[in-house]
Amino acid sequence: MEVAYDGSKFFGWQRQDGFESVQGAVEEALEGLVGDAVTVHGAGRTDTGVHALRQVAHFHVDTRLDDDRLRHAVNAHLARGVVVRRLESCRDDFHARFDARGKRYLYVTATTRFRPPFATEHVHWVTSALDLDAMRAAAAHIEGKHDFAAFGNAGSVRKTTVRTVRAVRIVARRERFAVIVEGDGFLYNMVRTIVGTLIEVGRGKLTADSVRAALESGDRTAAGPTAPARGLYLVRVHYDEAMFPGPDPGPSGVPGLYHH
Amino acid sequence: MEVAYDGSKFFGWQRQDGFESVQGAVEEALEGLVGDAVTVHGAGRTDTGVHALRQVAHFHVDTRLDDDRLRHAVNAHLARGVVVRRLESCRDDFHARFDARGKRYLYVTATTRFRPPFATEHVHWVTSALDLDAMRAAAAHIEGKHDFAAFGNAGSVRKTTVRTVRAVRIVARRERFAVIVEGDGFLYNMVRTIVGTLIEVGRGKLTADSVRAALESGDRTAAGPTAPARGLYLVRVHYDEAMFPGPDPGPSGVPGLYHH
Repeated sequence: MEVAYDGSKFFGWQRQDGFESVQGAVEEALEGLVGDAVTVHGAGRTDTGVHALRQVAHFHVDTRLDDDRLRHAVNAHLARGVVVRRLESCRDDFHARFDARGKRYLYVTATTRFRPPFATEHVHWVTSALDLDAMRAAAAHIEGKHDFAAFGNAGSVRKTTVRTVRAVRIVARRERFAVIVEGDGFLYNMVRTIVGTLIEVGRGKLTADSVRAALESGDRTAAGPTAPARGLYLVRVHYDEAMFPGPDPGPSGVPGLYHH
Repeated sequence: MEVAYDGSKFFGWQRQDGFESVQGAVEEALEGLVGDAVTVHGAGRTDTGVHALRQVAHFHVDTRLDDDRLRHAVNAHLARGVVVRRLESCRDDFHARFDARGKRYLYVTATTRFRPPFATEHVHWVTSALDLDAMRAAAAHIEGKHDFAAFGNAGSVRKTTVRTVRAVRIVARRERFAVIVEGDGFLYNMVRTIVGTLIEVGRGKLTADSVRAALESGDRTAAGPTAPARGLYLVRVHYDEAMFPGPDPGPSGVPGLYHH
């Protein structure tokens, strides 16, 4: 299944007792339909406040409903703020997380003169106009295979902090810009720290060279701050096979100017 | 002053004891600065859930702060969800409501296949694709000077239900459309009923001819339903004089594709 959700309405993807999570909401909707316990496995966990346009997840259920009816029924049981966009039967051994080959994230920031009264939980805001050319020069250093220790949270228990970032692009339109980050995998908070660092470059507090030096040093304090969750969207999960052969059902109403 | 606000965060414009209103929030921010009671007069009341990009309001205060510092200070005291975009000293006898010559509203509707998980309180949603040509033909009948009794709420205590609607335009982009309604004044719920009626036309439930007949009959049941508050934005208040001579400070971060 492909799921879109407003991260401001949930305490993250992962099920937690006593907190409403996206995983828990989808599992409860499925359980209400099939009468059995269902575990939904997401391609990745998103933190509280982080949104998704196309999170991918798999589950096993025993049902006589076909894919389309099951999707409709799940959506009818889901709260506002989360929607199943696509649902297809798949091979028995597909695993949304282990089979994922990469992800694409989008981070949206407003540079309006005033704090935006709308979409306060969906767009980050900085007052100052940023130097986008300097940010793009710094982004070029981040692309590629690097040890991202300076950009990963110390809480990470991964064996290696080496990752390949396939692309860091900056798209600006009117008083907003988006940073699009695509890679094979990410350390905890890595995308938000890349964005926070690029914003510091845009403000002139860091330079493209100091970003390269931060990468080489592996020193977390050499990179910029972690940008807040509210601007971050998981927009794609990549697999070797086409998981959803049909046409994309279109945008899911993301607030903003970017369609991914 | 020109004020933008997210209507989903307030119980309407008008101050009410025990409910957080936009008027009350702005008055409290001003009172905290000047130490006296302040009454803020808006150009018009907006209902709970209705947004504003450029509501206009006036007030009298005794302060040594210049306009720019006063605006900054008010914004520093205001909660998220409301922002003073512009603030200018004006002639003593200016009245935001009595001097207003007209208003422009924007109503945003998504026509995505799925209920949008984002902006649930900022965009109306209909599942079906609508016949925009039929809607535009019906909109042409609404333009002009008419008795809008069929489009006004019966609770209205106005002496006359005759109003002049200067323009009803429909702007479509991707899976969204906006209805822009401009006029010299509006009955209670009139804009939302115009939009609800046009959507019924788009669905084929009403025709351009039946909209003209509804206008002529003055029968509220002949028009369509009142569209929900969430899609409605007050975008302009018109005056004979230029209230804010400087350049527009730009968009205030409205979630969506339309800039007004």
